[in-house]
Amino acid sequence: MSSMFFEDFQVGDSFTTPGKTITEAEILEFAFVYDPQPLHTNKVAAEKSDFAGLIASGFHTLSLSFSLFFRLRLLDEANLASPGMDEVRWLAPVRPEDTLHVVAEVTEVRPSKSQPDKGIIFMNHFTYNQRNEKVLSVHCMHRLRCRS
Amino acid sequence: MSSMFFEDFQVGDSFTTPGKTITEAEILEFAFVYDPQPLHTNKVAAEKSDFAGLIASGFHTLSLSFSLFFRLRLLDEANLASPGMDEVRWLAPVRPEDTLHVVAEVTEVRPSKSQPDKGIIFMNHFTYNQRNEKVLSVHCMHRLRCRS
Repeated sequence: MSSMFFEDFQVGDSFTTPGKTITEAEILEFAFVYDPQPLHTNKVAAEKSDFAGLIASGFHTLSLSFSLFFRLRLLDEANLASPGMDEVRWLAPVRPEDTLHVVAEVTEVRPSKSQPDKGIIFMNHFTYNQRNEKVLSVHCMHRLRCRS
Repeated sequence: MSSMFFEDFQVGDSFTTPGKTITEAEILEFAFVYDPQPLHTNKVAAEKSDFAGLIASGFHTLSLSFSLFFRLRLLDEANLASPGMDEVRWLAPVRPEDTLHVVAEVTEVRPSKSQPDKGIIFMNHFTYNQRNEKVLSVHCMHRLRCRS
């Protein structure tokens, strides 16, 4: 897909990413640096938890999900820094060998009042596993440049 | 600090983490895997951007901030998987050699109605740089076990 600009997005547009299989090694490595809790770093402790096994850090699932979206390269030319995101919800555990993909849907397009060459698109990003269970939901803002 | 349980937290409790200096190498490495946009992976392109230089991925700042908090080890025994977070706001760019720390404040404690041995604490997590500028703000839920 080619690079898009603010005015190219319409409410209802939907983008689906390729899948990515997350490995046990990746889960352990990410968590050891960024989320060193036993559920994510220690297989023995995780086996004894309510989840009965290792699960990915929510920050890992979140980062991986957005990496899939950014790899579509839709926003490469237009993207400015994002103001933020809302309603981040971890809905189901992510386990080693799960294969995740993202569906991102435009929910609102808002031109900037003060900067006519910029605007914000609001999107729902949903991450699904190989059983089509929704594991993550995020309402995200992307601040974009206009083409003109 | 020692491990805490749901009933140990009170509204108004505040926890400050040690600082961590983020390096250019870390910014480039994280972004190449998780947020491969030119602002975060390409020094030449980033120099020409509105930010006039490389800035960290927001997902990097977010993950690093929570890693500082988890390293306080307050939640090691009590923490269950978090339902989510709200109002994630990236307020200022994070650049190579910035030193970040987090202040986390309890805003609400909510016992579970259905599970009397569990509850959720709501916290504001604020990340500051070495000039005490707030670079990130997050309203987060932590689902915790009770001690008893």
